[in-house]
Amino acid sequence: MLDKVAQRGEGRQRRAPLQAKTVIQRYHEGQWTVIEDSVANEFVLTIEVDRQEFATVVCTPDCLEDFVIGFLASEGVIRQASDVDNLEVSLYRGMAWVHLKEKFQMRPEVYRKRYITSCCGKSRQSFYFFNDAQTAHKIEDSTRLSAGDILNVMAKMDEESFLFKQTGGVHMAFLEIPGQCFIARSDIGRHNALDKVFGYLLRCGLSTIGARMAFSGRISSEVLLKVSKMGVGVVISHSAPTQLALDLARDLNITVIGFVRNSSFNVYTHDWRVQMS
Amino acid sequence: MLDKVAQRGEGRQRRAPLQAKTVIQRYHEGQWTVIEDSVANEFVLTIEVDRQEFATVVCTPDCLEDFVIGFLASEGVIRQASDVDNLEVSLYRGMAWVHLKEKFQMRPEVYRKRYITSCCGKSRQSFYFFNDAQTAHKIEDSTRLSAGDILNVMAKMDEESFLFKQTGGVHMAFLEIPGQCFIARSDIGRHNALDKVFGYLLRCGLSTIGARMAFSGRISSEVLLKVSKMGVGVVISHSAPTQLALDLARDLNITVIGFVRNSSFNVYTHDWRVQMS
Repeated sequence: MLDKVAQRGEGRQRRAPLQAKTVIQRYHEGQWTVIEDSVANEFVLTIEVDRQEFATVVCTPDCLEDFVIGFLASEGVIRQASDVDNLEVSLYRGMAWVHLKEKFQMRPEVYRKRYITSCCGKSRQSFYFFNDAQTAHKIEDSTRLSAGDILNVMAKMDEESFLFKQTGGVHMAFLEIPGQCFIARSDIGRHNALDKVFGYLLRCGLSTIGARMAFSGRISSEVLLKVSKMGVGVVISHSAPTQLALDLARDLNITVIGFVRNSSFNVYTHDWRVQMS
Repeated sequence: MLDKVAQRGEGRQRRAPLQAKTVIQRYHEGQWTVIEDSVANEFVLTIEVDRQEFATVVCTPDCLEDFVIGFLASEGVIRQASDVDNLEVSLYRGMAWVHLKEKFQMRPEVYRKRYITSCCGKSRQSFYFFNDAQTAHKIEDSTRLSAGDILNVMAKMDEESFLFKQTGGVHMAFLEIPGQCFIARSDIGRHNALDKVFGYLLRCGLSTIGARMAFSGRISSEVLLKVSKMGVGVVISHSAPTQLALDLARDLNITVIGFVRNSSFNVYTHDWRVQMS
């Protein structure tokens, strides 16, 4: 599939700008000045699957093939990158055309439909969307990490946050696979940044054993489910988790670490993965 | 309609908790301690309109009638609260049952469908979803405000952020209608906090002339469109706007103010509303 990924560049390869300049009035302690400022672009992308409009998403216009693959996998439309026969993205038209190997039939009743299940044999009822229940799975990863590893991965994410530093308007997902590589993706949409990482993983066929996901936003249930779909056992954030995310994390065997600030953090679930001595 | 709003409390009035306690491992400068921490609850609400499942949303479980009304108005399903004949919310089942005066026919092809238009007679192409193009409108509000007003409304919002202070896990929308009232709403979803304010406005039939919306999150195109649907001419945030939000704000005659920090902020659009002397 990878070979078939193309940019329909309307004649030549195009790149959409990730940010724009704008002239603003700045107020500081009683003084007004006119300055030029950088603002993150929002790009409107409509994803068509087998000639059916599947979704329209506002996103940061980079890594769009990864994004489309990750988004479709998150939504349960595909399982692996090779389920896609052809993918073209037009920056000019704001369109992604996807053709699957097995023809897709849009069933709106399935997508975003709620699904309450008692997950992983436990008696507590957890909530999943229908497509999540098909694709989220318990993480079998006995890797461990130290406090230093945790602070280190967040510091690396912050280092890589180029677009955030310039615009203040994007979220960042940063996956570290120790000894292999790291993947840093930005997007104005929290979930999109994760989908871009997911798409890259699928397209490259990378294993996520031992991997840690650092994330700039709060850890909500949706974030947690995306991490589980990627097979990642550790999620780390500067920000807070929600209670539902913690319930799911307990079920799905994911270690949730939040409020990483300077030399502090909280471990919420499955703390056995964190070396405390 | 208001009189008919009820809580189906499975026998008696129920309140869902907004936060939960959880025991965590806290790391601080080489030391581990076990402490109890507060985490924001995510509540799963399915909205059924005229016996058709319309949407499932994860949200903070307060002001749910306001939320449902605001959400349906944002989505273009209703124009005013009186379009709703009956609304019941069950916290136990996580359901909202809505019956409209004019029977609703689900047309999935309309909702979230993209719609590119040249708005307000200008030549630049702006992006709207189909339902937004039906309901977003140019703001006719010549109210002005001072730097002090701007800093003041953000300070008031921060004061009201009780759930954020406890959990760090929610967003806040704070609408001030000078001389009338303010409306402060929290939610784990950025957009939900705005929908809760919108629903309250519609249910109480409040005018938004002269109103300012303070918001804890970034000002994206979706946030901007929600503010326009409420008829509010000023939106103020601690955080950054996106370029698309600024394009829409220029079209829709909305003043966007971002990066409010201590005694500084940026005015991005329609600065004529801000008194600079």
